[in-house]
Amino acid sequence: MQGVKDYIETHKERFLEELFDLLRIPSISADSAYAKDVAKTAQVIKSKLQEAGADRAEVFSTKGHPIVFAEKILNPSLPTVMVYGHYDVQPPDPLDLWTSPPFEPEVRDSKIFARGACDDKGQMYMHVKAFEYMVANEELPCNVKFMIEGEEEVGSSSLGTFCEEHKSMLSCDVILVSDTSMIANDVPSITTGLRGLSYVEVEVTGPNRDLHSGTYGGAVANPVNALCEMISQLKDDKNQITIPGFYDKVQVISSDERKAMNEAPFDLDTYKSALAIEEVNGETGYTTLERTSIRPTLDVNGIWGGYTGEGAKTVLPSKAYAKISMRLVPNQNHDEITKLFSDYFVRLAPDGIKVKVTPHHGGQPYVTEVSSIEYQAAAKAYKKSFGVDAIPQRSGGSIPIIPLFEEVLDSKTVLMGFGLDSDNIHSPDENYGLFNYFKGIETIPYFYKYYTEMKSDEN
Amino acid sequence: MQGVKDYIETHKERFLEELFDLLRIPSISADSAYAKDVAKTAQVIKSKLQEAGADRAEVFSTKGHPIVFAEKILNPSLPTVMVYGHYDVQPPDPLDLWTSPPFEPEVRDSKIFARGACDDKGQMYMHVKAFEYMVANEELPCNVKFMIEGEEEVGSSSLGTFCEEHKSMLSCDVILVSDTSMIANDVPSITTGLRGLSYVEVEVTGPNRDLHSGTYGGAVANPVNALCEMISQLKDDKNQITIPGFYDKVQVISSDERKAMNEAPFDLDTYKSALAIEEVNGETGYTTLERTSIRPTLDVNGIWGGYTGEGAKTVLPSKAYAKISMRLVPNQNHDEITKLFSDYFVRLAPDGIKVKVTPHHGGQPYVTEVSSIEYQAAAKAYKKSFGVDAIPQRSGGSIPIIPLFEEVLDSKTVLMGFGLDSDNIHSPDENYGLFNYFKGIETIPYFYKYYTEMKSDEN
Repeated sequence: MQGVKDYIETHKERFLEELFDLLRIPSISADSAYAKDVAKTAQVIKSKLQEAGADRAEVFSTKGHPIVFAEKILNPSLPTVMVYGHYDVQPPDPLDLWTSPPFEPEVRDSKIFARGACDDKGQMYMHVKAFEYMVANEELPCNVKFMIEGEEEVGSSSLGTFCEEHKSMLSCDVILVSDTSMIANDVPSITTGLRGLSYVEVEVTGPNRDLHSGTYGGAVANPVNALCEMISQLKDDKNQITIPGFYDKVQVISSDERKAMNEAPFDLDTYKSALAIEEVNGETGYTTLERTSIRPTLDVNGIWGGYTGEGAKTVLPSKAYAKISMRLVPNQNHDEITKLFSDYFVRLAPDGIKVKVTPHHGGQPYVTEVSSIEYQAAAKAYKKSFGVDAIPQRSGGSIPIIPLFEEVLDSKTVLMGFGLDSDNIHSPDENYGLFNYFKGIETIPYFYKYYTEMKSDEN
Repeated sequence: MQGVKDYIETHKERFLEELFDLLRIPSISADSAYAKDVAKTAQVIKSKLQEAGADRAEVFSTKGHPIVFAEKILNPSLPTVMVYGHYDVQPPDPLDLWTSPPFEPEVRDSKIFARGACDDKGQMYMHVKAFEYMVANEELPCNVKFMIEGEEEVGSSSLGTFCEEHKSMLSCDVILVSDTSMIANDVPSITTGLRGLSYVEVEVTGPNRDLHSGTYGGAVANPVNALCEMISQLKDDKNQITIPGFYDKVQVISSDERKAMNEAPFDLDTYKSALAIEEVNGETGYTTLERTSIRPTLDVNGIWGGYTGEGAKTVLPSKAYAKISMRLVPNQNHDEITKLFSDYFVRLAPDGIKVKVTPHHGGQPYVTEVSSIEYQAAAKAYKKSFGVDAIPQRSGGSIPIIPLFEEVLDSKTVLMGFGLDSDNIHSPDENYGLFNYFKGIETIPYFYKYYTEMKSDEN
């Protein structure tokens, strides 16, 4: 497999041109005006998978945007790796903050600038090119499937049903995903955890209409004051969440694992100065790295009520609202937590206040065990291509579809992300390093090799 | 003075027609498109005061809308009553909620419907007609001045300077104002107190930009959570305000006065069902009538921050804002309270949060002593015309210009309001009862008579 570096060197220009062709199509899933571009992108991916060596490649229609499926089955007795990725992108607004147009990719400072450069066209296409290399050089050691969707940026709404309906077609031993980031180009890391999510909207009602605060203030409960009081009661003075039962199922992390986690490169002063804050602020007894990975959190994402225009208006409003989300860790269940929150929040309402809680969407937390074959194979692959050990890292964010894969397809996922936090995904000037694109293509075949070897050792 | 009823009966149609003429002019002070109408109204008032018997009537220009001044000086040794009122009106929006056009006055159900019918053209014009009666019938017992402004609905911004610049012209023994309401047509009341006001806007800043709540949540202070916590700390579990020093100067009301106050007609069940609330909610140890009159309060009038659109966005916002107002009672000083609030609020900020407090406008609390001559004269006048005793009543609201009169002109004010809470002032279908308009004209001359008698007894 030493040939992979040479192969990349030989085909570098083409690998870049093919990605640019993909990046030029504005496959914005959130905007129906781009539906044709989204559909066209699916067709291009399908062709590219066929050209790379798939025996079967198909575009499946859904109620939303299409899903591309492809496979190459060498032998049913061999392990099967399924690549998951997405070809849809976020809207590019605000356009005026882009240095070059979002759908006219260009390379500056050794980075590819375009919407989707990293998230996820760039990271997804590395897998197509790694697959091409393995097929062309007869180094593919196992069966491969691809499931590339077009609705990731709008909640993957068709993917759950698709998985349910095609369980046998999609059956695999492991799902391989590049849609996360690593610490730095010289500090590779593997995402071993994703937090779950419970997201609710609350509506707090006092009197049946807006009142004059001079006439009624002090005698009638003010829904904004009440909402503030209720929200403040959701955490105690140690910044622990007070919802009864909230922590009951939280996985306790061993002190060894916590110690390893805290050895990741992290500079608190740099962190604080990048955010212009004097102090960090979180749950007592945990470091910043722990607070954003192994501990559940609660944040108000938005709040509104009463008069918010210029100047002063002495109104005692009828209603106030907030959007509140909780990040969950193993083994919290998002439906259970949403229910615990709702029951508790309604009880916090003072006299004269009515409360309505509406759940938005949710997702389960996810963990890749570092002792698993998939993790070990990924770690060995990074070591081989980067020359240093990859650090296991739990992400604070959520990818709700990953726990769903385990539930429906009974397959674990390994998250081999090659992006950086500085790639501006979802923002203007999204970019992806040339180093990262080519290093990804180089690393992926090693994962296939080591995974297949370890699997056969296991049996 | 028994002739006043006959005089009103004889001139009823004309008194109504003259008011209608005033109501037809859209003197909306907030909208510069109506500046000519505002100016025209001032001229009409001036003419009407001249016709009614003023020796001098003048329209004074200001930086804003003009002020009408008029006087009739019988003898410098006699007491002088100065009438204060305003001829400007609130904007009529939303227009589609009016049963008849706001500037086409009409009588329905014995009420005059028009913008300004009660606030304050109707209540102000009663004084012009009462003056006409006294002059025509040689029953004017003292000197009279009128100061009628055109900026009350936009904060009386020119009036303070005008008072400062014309102290001697405006000198008087008492200021008489009809711009408040009474309990009911068969339960006359005199407003003896106005609360003061401190109004601030707070800006709470966490990180220097909006962050992803999955990546940073739990480690970086969230300004919305922080703002809620800070606001909730402004009151304790007895609903007392926790700002150090806040209650230091609050006038203690005798148990006798509290008892009298609570004998005013008030039905808690009607109050609650009108607002659709199950319970009232306020400071422990005080009744609803006390909470809205003799006790200071704190209300959030508006709050905003983070994502407030449809659906869910997992943002940890950079900033959150609130507008907070405090109603003050004698002898609290609004500048002092604003300072106490600011100092305390800044101290409440948790780690990683910066706070900015911006004062909006303010006003001092005001009280008319029930033992004063002006109150006694007003009470006797109501008793004479209504046949029952008027109830002293403290209003929860604020009229910042009233305490200013005392400060600049060294004159006390008596608030003889004839409106009802059901008059829809500042709202569509503003109205003023024919009973109230004519009863006001009937009552006012008695005030002049009794006030002059009591003043001469005093000397």
